[in-house]
Parts: sequence; structure tokens; C-alpha cells
Amino acid sequence: MNQIKLYDTTLRDGTQAEEVSFLVADKIRIAQLLDDLGIHYIEGGWPGSNPKDIAFFKDIKKVTLKQAKIAAFGSTRRANTTPDKDNNIRTLVQAEPDTVTIFGKTWDFHVHEALRISLEENLELIYDSLAYLKQHVGEVVYDAEHFFDGYKANPEYALKTLQAAQQAGADCIVLCDTNGGTLPHELPAIIEQVKQTVATPLGIHTHNDGECAVANSLIAVAHGIVHVQGTINGFGERCGNANLCSIIPALQLKMGKNCVGEGQLKSLRQLSRTIYELANMVPNKHQAYVGNSAFAHKGGVHVSAIQRHPETYEHIRPELVGNCTRVLVSDLSGRSNILAKAEEFNINLDSKDPVTLEILENIKDLENKGFQFEGAEASFELLMRRALGTLRNYFSVIGFRVIDTKRHEDEKPVSEATVQVKVGGRIEHTAAEGNGPVNALDNALRKALENFYPRLKEIRLYDYKVRVLPAGKGTASFTRVLIESGDKESRWGTVGVSDNIIDASYHALVDALQYKLLKDQDN
Amino acid sequence: MNQIKLYDTTLRDGTQAEEVSFLVADKIRIAQLLDDLGIHYIEGGWPGSNPKDIAFFKDIKKVTLKQAKIAAFGSTRRANTTPDKDNNIRTLVQAEPDTVTIFGKTWDFHVHEALRISLEENLELIYDSLAYLKQHVGEVVYDAEHFFDGYKANPEYALKTLQAAQQAGADCIVLCDTNGGTLPHELPAIIEQVKQTVATPLGIHTHNDGECAVANSLIAVAHGIVHVQGTINGFGERCGNANLCSIIPALQLKMGKNCVGEGQLKSLRQLSRTIYELANMVPNKHQAYVGNSAFAHKGGVHVSAIQRHPETYEHIRPELVGNCTRVLVSDLSGRSNILAKAEEFNINLDSKDPVTLEILENIKDLENKGFQFEGAEASFELLMRRALGTLRNYFSVIGFRVIDTKRHEDEKPVSEATVQVKVGGRIEHTAAEGNGPVNALDNALRKALENFYPRLKEIRLYDYKVRVLPAGKGTASFTRVLIESGDKESRWGTVGVSDNIIDASYHALVDALQYKLLKDQDN
Repeated sequence: MNQIKLYDTTLRDGTQAEEVSFLVADKIRIAQLLDDLGIHYIEGGWPGSNPKDIAFFKDIKKVTLKQAKIAAFGSTRRANTTPDKDNNIRTLVQAEPDTVTIFGKTWDFHVHEALRISLEENLELIYDSLAYLKQHVGEVVYDAEHFFDGYKANPEYALKTLQAAQQAGADCIVLCDTNGGTLPHELPAIIEQVKQTVATPLGIHTHNDGECAVANSLIAVAHGIVHVQGTINGFGERCGNANLCSIIPALQLKMGKNCVGEGQLKSLRQLSRTIYELANMVPNKHQAYVGNSAFAHKGGVHVSAIQRHPETYEHIRPELVGNCTRVLVSDLSGRSNILAKAEEFNINLDSKDPVTLEILENIKDLENKGFQFEGAEASFELLMRRALGTLRNYFSVIGFRVIDTKRHEDEKPVSEATVQVKVGGRIEHTAAEGNGPVNALDNALRKALENFYPRLKEIRLYDYKVRVLPAGKGTASFTRVLIESGDKESRWGTVGVSDNIIDASYHALVDALQYKLLKDQDN
Repeated sequence: MNQIKLYDTTLRDGTQAEEVSFLVADKIRIAQLLDDLGIHYIEGGWPGSNPKDIAFFKDIKKVTLKQAKIAAFGSTRRANTTPDKDNNIRTLVQAEPDTVTIFGKTWDFHVHEALRISLEENLELIYDSLAYLKQHVGEVVYDAEHFFDGYKANPEYALKTLQAAQQAGADCIVLCDTNGGTLPHELPAIIEQVKQTVATPLGIHTHNDGECAVANSLIAVAHGIVHVQGTINGFGERCGNANLCSIIPALQLKMGKNCVGEGQLKSLRQLSRTIYELANMVPNKHQAYVGNSAFAHKGGVHVSAIQRHPETYEHIRPELVGNCTRVLVSDLSGRSNILAKAEEFNINLDSKDPVTLEILENIKDLENKGFQFEGAEASFELLMRRALGTLRNYFSVIGFRVIDTKRHEDEKPVSEATVQVKVGGRIEHTAAEGNGPVNALDNALRKALENFYPRLKEIRLYDYKVRVLPAGKGTASFTRVLIESGDKESRWGTVGVSDNIIDASYHALVDALQYKLLKDQDN
């Protein structure tokens, strides 16, 4: 039993987090990334609850996934109906997922208080719903809601609900710690008892209300559970779900379980950061395994020790999850990062070249100001090429003016930009309108430059994100703008940081245009 | 053995976190707060390592504490000297703490590689140092560094180091998971083995590199450990130390242990937030027990259930740790969420009132456009009050103009805004500059309104987030602006959505100002 099945619910339970809200396009992209990581099941949503989730199940069919199965989530049928007439159950079948997961009540208190039916009726709900779904969908997972609380209140009845699920043909029975308050030392005895009662493969679904979600999941695996549910970065309602970014490396590197491939594990940090980015959230620096500080050492005794033997103060090799050791006073790790990046961009850089050091200094300076090159690799490449003197001077902007005017109380503001650009010896002075100052500026810049570079017409602005960076003690706060642009062939990210949002946007826009010109020149 | 001793190291190990740095005055204040909470031991610093820590031990003597003992931290003596001549040991004694805690090596690999001495010599270091300190200070705690890794590598030697500590008279022997990578299911067998070898009371000190620090601490207590080390909010190097804000309520409310008084437990959330404040850090919303989202509910099903019986989806009563239940509004929500929210804002709303349905329709409509009311509860409250006609018309904005000008290639743009507002019958027309158009507009609006409402001066802008929402088929793309504002008493979030970023920002800004006026009127 060394194979553990990973079941990701970032797209369903993860979106219950207070600030997390994904568009359908985001959800499709995340599903592809989860598939790349090697996740076995991707829970896409609850099609019965909202139209956005129905759209996801439709759109995901157009995407070819490597191995992940798409799961739809729902509940047992309502009382006083049959599964084939239950709207929720029908919507699940209509979504045509690979797998259906439904939850049912385990805790007698919930049966009485929430469903207001008899304990016997609840067993019928579970049995009927699963048996019907098993006939109409390939694979059926049963989430035993509040399993641990239910077991503690009435163990006999809790086990009966699992037996009903087993009899109905559930392919996996998942023990859920729905309220997230179960303590780690309570799990072993309960799980051992369950194993004596049902033979169906078991899963675990935990929440982090006691800050024990990861530990509880790992303990469950140590006691023979073979299916683990969680979310990337632990996104989820209240204190979050079990964090797969911590569970996967523990299973794989420490417990000898097979989950994902070695190469896939190395993409864990990148995936974690992309999901934060798509949710427009600041990554948690101190996050286990994948955080920026997870392998950061503050100098002194630890530093000299880890340089000789990393295992003295590091529980795993950070490279295994795509992270790296950071020595907060040293530039050693920085330089190797830059060399690796240069190689990625086919830029010839020597570790002893003074330019390498210059780029490093430049980056440190920019990072102190709040630059963030993840998600803005086009800006990073331009920066390297500028330092090396291999970037053509495609154009320069002499100046601009943007005016936003709102004339009446019920009128929307109008934004208009004028720009002066210089290309070669020629100056172009023009104007354009836009939806807001940045869009007007973008339009005017492109209008001015398209005469010289017609392919700039192909660019589209896909995303524009702004973040105010908290001020350090006694310093002004900075604004960071991340722009995602694209054309028919590819997408690229650029970044600008300034205490003025227009200035930051301007720099990110100019980088986006320059990168397009550089890219087309190379082709 | 129901009494557990809490040993806080926020002031020592906590300050190893990348961004945490306290002034001596901060440290004194934190020590008083920890004493108020009922912490038994406060580790104030490592007097041998820096002058700031020496100053702390001097200044803390002038403060009267209720029950907390002050502990000084250090290491075993160096090789080739005696404790009375060892500088580190002498400084510990000179600091005159109530308790001294020293760490020593457990892991044979570290003895060879870091200390470069024989295994036998290391045992002498441990014995000598503790025996000397026991004579000169009232109470001595021994931290067995890397205990679990050391035990796994060489159990016999690891246990010998503990026996040396016991023979020297240590009052408590603390098993440290220094690298933070030990998994929860590994602890029970190791701890049981230790209990057969030493009779000295045992402690636990864990780190969060595997996201298991809290769980590992609780498992240790379940296996008879009586002294728990950790930090407030889990501050600490890399992924942090064990989080006492999660450990204390679990011990007290779930495991039947005595740690702190009932009234003291109620101050936990306040203490957590004050420590974040002093460290100049943003609190973690999703933090277990004490976070803003720890008892926040988004799903419609959950909300109607918790209103009848909170225990259905809450693992403890939030009031016990000074927190409270919050209901969120989103596309997953139903009518019960809106009613609950209205109650929270003291707005009288009836589920059968047609206004309730109107608000719900309104919200669904806005959410389809891209509104997101999580994190923008102030906008939500204003929306309800507008629908009910109970919002005063504090002011109206007749019009504005914002101009951003960049005159030369190397110059930063300058932003200037003019606004016309109407308050009662009076019109105010004024202008201001800013870091970008939104800031200029904000400044001009406030300048115009401060004449009428001087308390608007108290508002600060804490965060400003922008997201471009991709266009649906045949529609323009929308921009969503989320603003977090605050004054001395509280913080509030507002939202604006428009196809024009200035318009979206304008709406979020106006909501922020109106909310401040509404809030102050209620007080």
C-alpha cells in the first residue's frame, strides 16, 4: 500500500476561503497545473450550487489532461424524493465528471438538527444516492461529513453510515474532520476501529482549525489511509483545509509513499506561487517547504554549519521541492539563481563576469524596493539584456499627460492620454482615450509606436494587478504593478514599482511593449 | 499531572524570524502581556549573544510580574574550559534570571561536525554546565537540541546526553525538534522510551518546518510531557516555532489541562494582535482560534446551521479565546447570510421583507459584474443601508479631473486632482497632488470634505488591490478595486467595480469615506 491517491479540492473547498474567488478561466488553468503536478483527482466544484461551477465542467472537457480525474462534488439526495428526481444528484450526473464525490451526515446530532429526519432515513439517503451514482458515473467517493465528531458522539451510528456507503458500492470512504478540531492523538484508535468495520479503501479530509490539519492527514496515512484530500497552500474556509504543499513532500520524502514523480515534486514551489498569484494573494513567507523563508538562515552558527552540512539545520534538501537555501547575509545563492535564469533565456553569462555581479546588485536593490520577478520574467530578461548591453533601443518616451474627467454626478469618468515618443530620429505626438489612465496611456503609446512597429497591434493586456507594499519603518510605501500581456503565440509578465501608481504602470507597460519587440526580433 | 507549564520564547527564538525585531521597550511590554496571559516562563533572550538582550534582563527587574519567571538562554560551556571561566555561562549568571535554560548537543553527527569533540567530552560539557548553573541559579532547564534527529541516528547516545543532564540536576529536560521535520506519528514511541530512561520532568520544543509543530507539541503532552515551549503567533526562524496561540486553547479546552485562567484565555486574540502590531506585521487572517477568519462562514448551508447550533460548524465557542463568529457574503451565499449580516450591523431586516430579496438580487447582479464582498464588508453595509433608505446623504461629488504629467524622459509623473463636492447646500471646489491619480483624487476629496467632517483626517489607506476581470463574450472587461482603510479604532474594506479603473477606485474611495462618517455617527 505504498501508493497514495491525492485528491485536490482547491477549486471547491479552497474557494470557500474568505478572499479566494477564481474565474472559470482561472479554474481551468489551475486544473492544468494540478494535472502537471501529478494530482490524481481534481475536485472542480459543486455543479448544483452555482452556474460558474457548471461552466467549469463544460469547459474542462475541451482540455486534455495527463492523468488527473475530474471530480464533481455534491450531497446525498433530499429526504422525500428518489435520486433520479433529486435536482442536486441529477446535476452531478449531467456534469459528466470522471468521479462523483458526495457528502452525507455521520453525526446523529446533525441528522436530527440539520436534516430533521430519523437516523434510519439518513442511512437510506446515503445508500440510495451512492447506489444510483455508482450506476451512472464510473467512480464514486463518499465524504463522511463530521466523521470524527460524529464518532465521538455516537460511534455505533457513525460506523453504520460508513457501512451503508460500503454496501452501496462507494469506491472510497473519506473520513472528514469537517470542523477541524480533532486532535492528532485521537485519530489512531478511531481509524483502527473503522478498519475493523469497513473494507472499502479509506480517505482523509481535514481542516486546520486546530492547526493540526497536515499532522492529522499524515497520521491517517501512517494508519493505512490511502486517499488524501487537501488544497494548495491550505486555502479553505475559516483556517483552511489540509495543505497539500506540506503533505505531498512529507509522504514522498519522509514516509516512503508514491504520490507524484520526482520532477513533478520539484515544481511544487512554483505551483504554490502561481496559485497565490491567481488568487491575488501575498504568499506566506514562512510556509513549510515552499515559502521564501522555509530554508532561510539568519547568519551566525547556523550558516557556517549548513554550508558544510545542510542537514544540520535543514530537514530536507530544498531543491527537492523547487526551493533553495537562503543565507540572508550572503549573495552565494543569488548568483547561482541568476546564472540559472540566464541559461533559461539563452543568455551567455559567466559567473566571474563583473556584469553578473552588477545584475545581482541591481536585483537586490529592486527587490528591496518591492520588485517581484516571479510572474514577471519578461522584465527580468530585459533587465539582464540591458545590463549586458544587448537590448536594442527600440523607442524612448519623451513625455505624456493623462487626464481623467468626471463632469456630472451620474457620469463615468473619461480618460484621455497624450504621448510623445521618439523612434530613431523621428518624434511622434499623439493621443488616445481609454478605460482609465493606464489603459489610455497604453492605447496612446501603442498608437504612436504602431506606425513603426505594426506587430504591436497583436498585443493584448490579459491581466493587471496592483498591490500597495507595506511601508518599512520610516519609509514611503511603494506600489507594485504586475501586467500580463500576450499575443497569438505566448504570454509574458512585466513588473513596475514606484511610489506613484502611474509611474509603476508606465514601466510595466513599456517593458511589455519592449519584450514583444525583442521576442519578434528573435523569431 | 494536569498542570502544564507554558514556556514562551517569543522574545528569543521568535526574534529569529526574518522580519521580527523588537526594541528593548517592546520586549518589556511583551513580557508584561505574557505575564497577564498567565505564561509561566518567559525566555527573554540570550545575554551572551548581544547587548540588547543584556539590557532586557536589567530592565525587566524593575517590573513587577504576577507569576511569570524570567529565563535566560545560552549554551553549554565551550570545550577546554570550566564553567566558571566560560564567558557565555558567566554572562548567564550575571543576568540574574529566575531560570537558566541551556542547550546542548544530542546528535552524534553534530558533536563530531559542529563541536569537533568526542562523544564523551560532550557529555562532560552538558554535566559540568548544568551542575555549575544549578548551584548559581535557582532553576535550570536543559534543551536537548536536535533530540529527535539525534535519537533516530543514535538512540543510545541521545539517551546518554539526557542522563547526563539528569545527573547534573536539571529541573526539566526539553526534547527539541530543532530542524522541525519530525512527523507526528514518530513521537509516541520515542517519548515512551525517554520516560523509561529519565525521571526528570520532560518538556517539548518544536519547529514548524513540516507544518506539524502544534500537533507534535500536543502529542507530546498526551504522552506525559509537562512543559511546552513555543511563541505567540508561531514567530520564529524559517517556518516558525510551535504556536502557543493554538496550543494553549487545545490544552485547556480540549485536553483538560490547566495552563491559564479562564479570563486569561479570553485575552488570547487581543494578545496575538498586539504582538503582530509591535512586530509591524499584518495578522494572519486564517490563524487557528484567533484569526479574523477562524470563525467566518461563507456557505449558505453552514450559515443557517450555525445560527441554530454553533457547534455544527465551530470546533469551540469563539468567545472563549476572545474571537467571534462572522458571516461572509458571496456568490455561494443565500438569504440566511444576508439576514445574519444585517443582524451583525444592527440593521432590522425581515426574511419576508421584499427589501431582503432586493438586496439579494442586487448582490448577485454585482457579483456577476465581479464585485467581491469578502474583504469589503463596509461596502456591503452601505449597500444594505442604501436599499433600506437609512443612509444619510453625507456628501455628493459633482465632478473631478485628474491630470498625470510626465514632462521628460527621466522624470517621474506628477498627479494632480481637482474635485467639486456638495455638502448640504454648499459647494467646495479644491485641488491636491498625490502619488498617482487615485491618491491625488483621495487627497482632493478629503481636503474638500475635511472642512465639513474633520474626523476624516484620521483615515489611513492600508491596502489597495486591483484586479482586471477577463471579459465575457461580447462584454467589456471590468476592473475591481479593493481598498482597506482604517483609523485608530478599526479597519474596513470597500470595493468598486467598473470598466474604468479610476471609476472603480472612485467608488471604493467614496464608500471608504462614507463608512467612516457612518461609523463615527453611530458612536
